[in-house]
Amino acid sequence: MKKIAVILAGCGVYDGAEINEAVLTLLHILKAGAEYQCFAPDIEQLHTINHLTGEEMIANRNVLVEAARIARGDIKAITELNIDDFDALIIPGGFGAAKNLSDFATQGTSASVQADVLRSCQAFAEAKKAAGYMCIAPAMLPLIYPTGIKTTIGNDADTAAAISQLGAQHENCTVDNIVVDEQHKVVSTPAYMLAENLLEADKGIEKLVKKVLDLV
Amino acid sequence: MKKIAVILAGCGVYDGAEINEAVLTLLHILKAGAEYQCFAPDIEQLHTINHLTGEEMIANRNVLVEAARIARGDIKAITELNIDDFDALIIPGGFGAAKNLSDFATQGTSASVQADVLRSCQAFAEAKKAAGYMCIAPAMLPLIYPTGIKTTIGNDADTAAAISQLGAQHENCTVDNIVVDEQHKVVSTPAYMLAENLLEADKGIEKLVKKVLDLV
Repeated sequence: MKKIAVILAGCGVYDGAEINEAVLTLLHILKAGAEYQCFAPDIEQLHTINHLTGEEMIANRNVLVEAARIARGDIKAITELNIDDFDALIIPGGFGAAKNLSDFATQGTSASVQADVLRSCQAFAEAKKAAGYMCIAPAMLPLIYPTGIKTTIGNDADTAAAISQLGAQHENCTVDNIVVDEQHKVVSTPAYMLAENLLEADKGIEKLVKKVLDLV
Repeated sequence: MKKIAVILAGCGVYDGAEINEAVLTLLHILKAGAEYQCFAPDIEQLHTINHLTGEEMIANRNVLVEAARIARGDIKAITELNIDDFDALIIPGGFGAAKNLSDFATQGTSASVQADVLRSCQAFAEAKKAAGYMCIAPAMLPLIYPTGIKTTIGNDADTAAAISQLGAQHENCTVDNIVVDEQHKVVSTPAYMLAENLLEADKGIEKLVKKVLDLV
């Protein structure tokens, strides 16, 4: 049975992993007959956002502890991720991918990937194992893969330009589709960068999961 | 287009709405061609649980604010729920249904339903509009519907006995199935009372959503 490592960035679109994307990812992995283990970095979030008002909350939260809500407690610190145990990697989006897994949301073209996350992602890249990055998570790809890595974050011109400047080759993509870099075995889909509802997100995420498993 | 009110109990299985159940509910509502609006009570949670360790956290959280994470901010206080605008009601489970929407988790056979939640649920019942309760949420049914309301929480003997003592007629049910009280238009499914993974939960939840929409 193919086994996928899923890295979560917290729990909630504005400061963590996009919940719908995360659940749909896990659902489609199981539907495809594969299995998964969730991981998250054991670090403080960049900040914690009240998802009702959009305002920053005073007490900050921990990425791993919050991501555990999505995984029903069945989650490990990313430092425990041994890539020998996995066939592929998938990273759902949400602002957490650009605020916690990396600092792309605040640093843009000067962004870097969190050290433990970078180590794991690079290990999958170097082992030529398949990977899927969705929503804003592909902003990390030029910091992990060689220059020219092909990807998408949908069609937002400013974000696409920033990712291109970091070294990726950005292709516009609709919400129901995926962009595949066959050479590096990397799949991406816009998800909630473009999705107006769960149904739209579901289509691209299902395709991404299936393609990642095909590339294994 | 049929419109469903969905009441969320927070965000996380141990102190709020079970995230997978909530997302699958919303997904299947859209897949069936209906639409939804999420609601939650604007109250403090009973407590906040660290989902990684299972321990209680010091700073407590608000049910509506946390539920907004699942709804991506598109959620209203339950006091704004006008049942004239909706064809049916669905309540996903998670401990929040027994800790925040009601106090069944701590009071058992002396349980009561939170006042604003009770008002909304009773309004759907009195208007003979369809309703779906999943996981532990059916424990609220005998406090909302007349004695003898038919329901299920799966097959846990102690919980079933408590619900029966409160006045419901409990029927054992497998995770991939539903129990329907046709007279009161109430559908229930065990979901994560029995589900061992997302795929199992998905089957019962899909059936519940379809049946609720059939009863509209």
